[in-house]
Amino acid sequence: MNEKAIFYHAGCPVCVAAENAVADAIDRSRYAVEIVHLGMDKSRIPEAEAAGVASVPALVLGGAVFHINFGASMTDLK
Amino acid sequence: MNEKAIFYHAGCPVCVAAENAVADAIDRSRYAVEIVHLGMDKSRIPEAEAAGVASVPALVLGGAVFHINFGASMTDLK
Repeated sequence: MNEKAIFYHAGCPVCVAAENAVADAIDRSRYAVEIVHLGMDKSRIPEAEAAGVASVPALVLGGAVFHINFGASMTDLK
Repeated sequence: MNEKAIFYHAGCPVCVAAENAVADAIDRSRYAVEIVHLGMDKSRIPEAEAAGVASVPALVLGGAVFHINFGASMTDLK
């Protein structure tokens, strides 16, 4: 039985690929990963807020909310 | 051949279990995960800074840095 992991984002054009890197790295054999685009699916916003999501992207793992901030990569700075 | 994932933290007593939840969720069949405690291993700080780590906890995945902020869970608020 897999634990649920929900990755909430809003399609930030600069960061979406990077955001997906974290969601993609999660072990699918242990977690059922769901990706929710809150910009396109606003009906899920109340659920995200109830889970404690204060900003996106955020990863909800086992009832705990992790807010993810992507800093500029060194590659971007060059 | 596994990609390298490095999870930097500094032993925040409230958050360490939650921080480890994210690192623990990473698929070990695809990523070689290393956990670095910068408070205990200060010699790794320059390497973390060079990778773009500005705060801990942070996850470095494929050269990109993701800073993780753990918000209070709803359970904590009850």
